[in-house]
Amino acid sequence: MQDTVKNVDFIISPSWIIPVVPSGEILSDYSVAVRGSKIISIHPSKNNKTLFQTDNVIELKDHVLVPGFINSHTHVAMNLLRGFADDLPLMKWLEDHIWPAESKFVSPDFAFDGSLSACYEMLRGGTTCFNDMYFFPEQTGKAAISLGIRAVLGITVIEFPTNYASDPQDYLTKGLATRDELESEELIKFAMAPHSPYTVSDKTFKKISVLANQLQIPIHIHLHESNREIEESVKQHGRRPLHRLNDLGMLSPSFIGVHSVHLNDLEIELLATQGCSVVHCPSSNLKLASGFSPIGKLIRNNVNIAIGTDGAASNNKLDMISEMRLSAILAKAVDGNAETLPAHTALKMATLGGAKSLAIDHLTGSIEVNKLADLTAINLSEAETHPHFDIASLIVYSAGRENVTNVWVNGNRVVNNKQVTGISNESIIQKNLYWKNKIEKSKNE
Amino acid sequence: MQDTVKNVDFIISPSWIIPVVPSGEILSDYSVAVRGSKIISIHPSKNNKTLFQTDNVIELKDHVLVPGFINSHTHVAMNLLRGFADDLPLMKWLEDHIWPAESKFVSPDFAFDGSLSACYEMLRGGTTCFNDMYFFPEQTGKAAISLGIRAVLGITVIEFPTNYASDPQDYLTKGLATRDELESEELIKFAMAPHSPYTVSDKTFKKISVLANQLQIPIHIHLHESNREIEESVKQHGRRPLHRLNDLGMLSPSFIGVHSVHLNDLEIELLATQGCSVVHCPSSNLKLASGFSPIGKLIRNNVNIAIGTDGAASNNKLDMISEMRLSAILAKAVDGNAETLPAHTALKMATLGGAKSLAIDHLTGSIEVNKLADLTAINLSEAETHPHFDIASLIVYSAGRENVTNVWVNGNRVVNNKQVTGISNESIIQKNLYWKNKIEKSKNE
Repeated sequence: MQDTVKNVDFIISPSWIIPVVPSGEILSDYSVAVRGSKIISIHPSKNNKTLFQTDNVIELKDHVLVPGFINSHTHVAMNLLRGFADDLPLMKWLEDHIWPAESKFVSPDFAFDGSLSACYEMLRGGTTCFNDMYFFPEQTGKAAISLGIRAVLGITVIEFPTNYASDPQDYLTKGLATRDELESEELIKFAMAPHSPYTVSDKTFKKISVLANQLQIPIHIHLHESNREIEESVKQHGRRPLHRLNDLGMLSPSFIGVHSVHLNDLEIELLATQGCSVVHCPSSNLKLASGFSPIGKLIRNNVNIAIGTDGAASNNKLDMISEMRLSAILAKAVDGNAETLPAHTALKMATLGGAKSLAIDHLTGSIEVNKLADLTAINLSEAETHPHFDIASLIVYSAGRENVTNVWVNGNRVVNNKQVTGISNESIIQKNLYWKNKIEKSKNE
Repeated sequence: MQDTVKNVDFIISPSWIIPVVPSGEILSDYSVAVRGSKIISIHPSKNNKTLFQTDNVIELKDHVLVPGFINSHTHVAMNLLRGFADDLPLMKWLEDHIWPAESKFVSPDFAFDGSLSACYEMLRGGTTCFNDMYFFPEQTGKAAISLGIRAVLGITVIEFPTNYASDPQDYLTKGLATRDELESEELIKFAMAPHSPYTVSDKTFKKISVLANQLQIPIHIHLHESNREIEESVKQHGRRPLHRLNDLGMLSPSFIGVHSVHLNDLEIELLATQGCSVVHCPSSNLKLASGFSPIGKLIRNNVNIAIGTDGAASNNKLDMISEMRLSAILAKAVDGNAETLPAHTALKMATLGGAKSLAIDHLTGSIEVNKLADLTAINLSEAETHPHFDIASLIVYSAGRENVTNVWVNGNRVVNNKQVTGISNESIIQKNLYWKNKIEKSKNE
């Protein structure tokens, strides 16, 4: 064996690779070599045998390999409430349906089963990492670990009591205990997750700010989702929510404003100056009639943009390919310019943009040597994804999550030929059925 | 054998049926019996054996049966130009890319191969009928017949010469000859298809109007797609396009205005008063940055609304489930009201709304006794389509075309367990590859 021949665990040889870095590049007939959890080489496939020693070469003809998608805003446990209350406005949906249902049913078991179902769905759709905001994050963490998906767990705080915690301090105490419990897990990281400006007090925000600084973790918050939120803030605090948060010293590159639908030009500038990230959730913003996020303006102001599905109760599918597509086409119409958000940009938002928002872009979000092997293979061999003029366009505009065949997280193959390796479809359905019957029974009581 | 026991060709027994008529109804454990091309009974599945004599009972556990989708506006042959020129504005896209490519490549063979590819894609996605506007409609008709999909072929007219015809009279002559050739085909119907107000003269419109009346067929036209179209019309004709067409006597229940993005209140009222139909193409309208159609207002004015994918060069997937979803969520945001377009309404637009626009709602568009057996079965047994709180929501908001398993057109099973019965995936790919190579070679010359 020559000195230059290296041992690797496996090599993936797809027809194309879109590494996301460098931007816009499409590699043909290149391979990715993985050792342990990391990518150790990206090289022409014809050199596989001369460069590496391994029996495990995964040939993926007609596939494109992309960085795993990062779902930058969701409430995974809410998968159990998918389709429970559709076609309703945000506050009616929250106040009359979601919150009452949550107060009846949300429990550690609910959180675990719902998270498992969502992790299964996300993995099958090529998502390798998600940023969550919900109750009982320790259960979500355990579900994620059990299926091998990367997760950033929100230390959720809301001013009112829920089944999870009694007051803001209780939320913080419990969240921090979860962090202590799961901190050493390779797949798990944390973020502070105050629910929103309209459900969290100044006093609590100040505590959260201190903690985020101490722990060096992001702050993940619903922001400027609806006009009502802004009007109420002006009434109560004399300022729009973003300005209130700015005055509280919350804005920084660690700040992740989710939705950020209603932003004026000054606010976009403020987000840019402070280096904040925005998570765009286009399906949820449309379905709840929240409005149209000014993505074109955010791009032109160099604000980092990530993409999120939101939870299954407000979107109904945790499908990042669907969200990329909608992000790209919607931004064009909102901006009145079909060149505003090209396919490559949408892919970057769904991968590197997410990683940057979560401050894990040194670890994941692109296919680069020394980054973690979080990888998604998409099959372009079906009639629906032909002809092959533009591989990036095909992924964003023509493909669907059904074209995802193989997914790796941290170097582990977690989806193999469309099958999630950690659990069966039947087990997930059983859990869904159990909760559905329980919730429907109570509805009829 | 009792008198009441009837012979049928087959019975489909799904878990649920959404017949669309009556509106909003979901039948559980009902079956549909088919004889020849027609639905002859809808009855509780427990009565299958007592009512009917057949060995062919198709049990579809966890499936919902809906009327086949009607793609009410497309250019099917353009499937060969999918991804050829993305992320560009409408006129640049048309004038610098699509029209030059068409003048180089569009031919009878191009039209046949492209149509075949689109028919394959549409059938797999549950579409049983499409309304087309393109050149060489006889080729599209033959492709449709060969795969068993129902088609309304446009007698396309545009003022300038193309590879297909030299002047308006030539388009009409060729279109009418195609009608003569294919008129007796069960699956084929025709519409007059003047391209748009900005590419057709008053003189030609008058001829078209007379012909549509004589032949008793609809008029299918791009309408108010972009602001530029309206501005140019005001300059050239002193009126907005819809008023010009009204003055020409074109508006009636046979008039189908495609896109209809830029409509003021008076124009919505005019469409309503004249009983016109609108075809909503949400993906195309967003992707080409054309704008936001006022669907909420059209609904409140009782204008009949159908849904179309447009061609694969401006949408990139001929996927009616995707368009239903986008129609429903987009209308909510445009209208500022999450209740504007519920799941059941989206399903109705994609089926009966389309049939009504094409004046074939007495034949198809809903699951009713004596209607043609144009049926689509959607599998809800995957984790992604659970829990089962609301079957209509699951179809529109959570499912994808990948969940379509079986499709019947005119009583024939044209998709069997996700496989198109008339042609293989490989044949379609081969044709795509042939044209892709030809087009790319010419690009590089």
